[in-house]
Amino acid sequence: MRNPTRINRFLKVLVVTLLIGQAALFSSVAQAQSGPVKVEWLGWSFYRFTSPTGKVILTNPFITGNPDAAVKLEEVGKPDLILVTDAHRDEVGDAVAIAKASGAKIITPSFEFGTVLAGWGVPDAQVMRRNPGGRFTWEGITIRVVGAVHGSAATDPSSKFPLYGGIAAGFVVTFENGYTVYFMGSSAATQDMALWAELYKPDAMIFLMSGFTEPLDVGTAIKLVAGKSPNLKTLIPHHHRVTPPAGALSVADVRAVLDSMGIRIPITDPVRKQVYELAK
Amino acid sequence: MRNPTRINRFLKVLVVTLLIGQAALFSSVAQAQSGPVKVEWLGWSFYRFTSPTGKVILTNPFITGNPDAAVKLEEVGKPDLILVTDAHRDEVGDAVAIAKASGAKIITPSFEFGTVLAGWGVPDAQVMRRNPGGRFTWEGITIRVVGAVHGSAATDPSSKFPLYGGIAAGFVVTFENGYTVYFMGSSAATQDMALWAELYKPDAMIFLMSGFTEPLDVGTAIKLVAGKSPNLKTLIPHHHRVTPPAGALSVADVRAVLDSMGIRIPITDPVRKQVYELAK
Amino acid sequence: MRNPTRINRFLKVLVVTLLIGQAALFSSVAQAQSGPVKVEWLGWSFYRFTSPTGKVILTNPFITGNPDAAVKLEEVGKPDLILVTDAHRDEVGDAVAIAKASGAKIITPSFEFGTVLAGWGVPDAQVMRRNPGGRFTWEGITIRVVGAVHGSAATDPSSKFPLYGGIAAGFVVTFENGYTVYFMGSSAATQDMALWAELYKPDAMIFLMSGFTEPLDVGTAIKLVAGKSPNLKTLIPHHHRVTPPAGALSVADVRAVLDSMGIRIPITDPVRKQVYELAK
Repeated sequence: MRNPTRINRFLKVLVVTLLIGQAALFSSVAQAQSGPVKVEWLGWSFYRFTSPTGKVILTNPFITGNPDAAVKLEEVGKPDLILVTDAHRDEVGDAVAIAKASGAKIITPSFEFGTVLAGWGVPDAQVMRRNPGGRFTWEGITIRVVGAVHGSAATDPSSKFPLYGGIAAGFVVTFENGYTVYFMGSSAATQDMALWAELYKPDAMIFLMSGFTEPLDVGTAIKLVAGKSPNLKTLIPHHHRVTPPAGALSVADVRAVLDSMGIRIPITDPVRKQVYELAK
Repeated sequence: MRNPTRINRFLKVLVVTLLIGQAALFSSVAQAQSGPVKVEWLGWSFYRFTSPTGKVILTNPFITGNPDAAVKLEEVGKPDLILVTDAHRDEVGDAVAIAKASGAKIITPSFEFGTVLAGWGVPDAQVMRRNPGGRFTWEGITIRVVGAVHGSAATDPSSKFPLYGGIAAGFVVTFENGYTVYFMGSSAATQDMALWAELYKPDAMIFLMSGFTEPLDVGTAIKLVAGKSPNLKTLIPHHHRVTPPAGALSVADVRAVLDSMGIRIPITDPVRKQVYELAK
Repeated sequence: MRNPTRINRFLKVLVVTLLIGQAALFSSVAQAQSGPVKVEWLGWSFYRFTSPTGKVILTNPFITGNPDAAVKLEEVGKPDLILVTDAHRDEVGDAVAIAKASGAKIITPSFEFGTVLAGWGVPDAQVMRRNPGGRFTWEGITIRVVGAVHGSAATDPSSKFPLYGGIAAGFVVTFENGYTVYFMGSSAATQDMALWAELYKPDAMIFLMSGFTEPLDVGTAIKLVAGKSPNLKTLIPHHHRVTPPAGALSVADVRAVLDSMGIRIPITDPVRKQVYELAK
């Protein structure tokens, strides 16, 4: 019988150690000078990638208020880039504090979020204003901003109402060695995912596993990408609790819908702070 | 010659009676315990569905300020669910007052509209925050939130400018007996409609017939859905006046564009407050 | 060898004269009573069309603060219509001042931008509130508003944060003689571009050449349109500097990506204030 959470053969788990409170170790991982792309799940939508040449990229670094946060703010160290998929509080997370402390650059989902970040005091030189359709290249890494069907309100103490943060996005990250990850953000399935898959041929897809997501919707998102990217061998969920509450979408649910669609790509159910190696 | 407004053979008109001012009767309809899905047009985008087991679902309950409103606020009774496709005043309508008076739950087009509703004092337990790609299930009824290409500003007395209400949506409602209705909201045609049609196979589509809508656009929306849902047998317009002003899009215009596209599905031009039965 | 900027054979350059400071001449162009569609690039996304019967349509009339503005505000004359693709400062440009001075009508990308314009004091009779999927017809000219994947925040002195301006759009303009131009605004590529191309069969496409645009993305946008509109013979960039800075997307970059996709349609690299004639 299929084990929906069995470890992908394309991933070799490196349980380096339990890293709680050991910022120095994170730092050493970040400085590795060669090897595959490494990724750790740090809770909710917060992933940390370490590139083959040691660059560190965070997604949606949600720590404060995240019951599953696997690191403390002071343990984040010095990332190079932070990708934020929309202005929602759980996606922005602690990006502002981390950027201010580390000098990391934030790649915006759309121009407007850059204005929000400026309003929150992030130095302009660290705000890489991009829009869907745009590109950011740095040190051999290419990041494409792609669309997402999702809202993007920021939370600001100055109002009880939603503050417009532009439009939401996903990111396609191509590392120095060509390995490509599509992080879909909080998007509903959209046909445009097939376009991006055809253009950028992702090897891995980090898909939305939000509690209320319709399984057929996320299954369709994966199907659209898999249909155009023969490279797609790795699926990883985000936006979920370590122990999803009753009724929330689970890895088993996504596995079942993919099976019903004839999609056999394994799903990696990540263990927090384990270091997974991603390779073609 | 085709009569563009002839009554669909899949709809059997039950002219129960003229219900003006007779809230008790609405209530009895709402409590019917079996039978097909029933639907009444109450003006503009305001539809009232009664499910096979008697659950009452409203769409965009626009009464105050709606010159074609077929019911008064005090006649609405006790709906179970209210679907609001975006934060525009004519779509929100009296949803807040109805929810407060009845305890009905409001399904949001996106998370942000929940924040707007909270700002307007709707109790949190009645705000079902969903996003496109999300699902709400209750008592055998499944509601999928799907995308819509449309803005979603709320009107708030605190500003003369638009208040961000998230992104707009459509809804796909599957009743206890499997009958499925796609309410497209105010969306432009988008290829994603074909995705939703393929996934959920709607039996009926409530399409946008806004005054300024390009006929080819709404024809394309219907074509995209019909092309992927062989079940689609019923088309009903919304967002129109009882007597459209000169130049506004009419049922005859939509009929003509569908004919030009080879789509023969009849359009039901609803009479306000008539009860239509929907069955496969 | 291909010259990426060679002049399209479908365009006959009429270097009428250098028009700097000669508002009277603009006026005479605008009053021409017959002939082909004429178009002039006035810097950034600012184009001026003169229709076969002499109607003048501006796109995104960005003068104040535009280092490449080819006209002064007082030289704009009396346009009939202004198309604004989103609420960003460089797209709105001087639309409000021009509308107030000239009586020109502004076609909005979505309803909300009409509210913004009203907030800025544009008389209601000049604000043509449209949404994607909508249509504006006037004097034999048909303008379809179509979607765009882009944010749409307005800048207002009352806040340091983005002001929601609705959703962004593109425009498809069909002139009196049937010649059709698709102005894509600042959109990322989306499959819906194929829908619009199929419906409206544009003869020309004014595509996004923003500094940070991924070449594959804009190439895909053009490919989607070319694939469904056999009429497409003319490509013109917008949203670029006269001399793009190092690293910014250039006509040569777009030419290279189109060549790699097998698309041979020539790109016209417009010279500011030259009058180009557009004909089938």
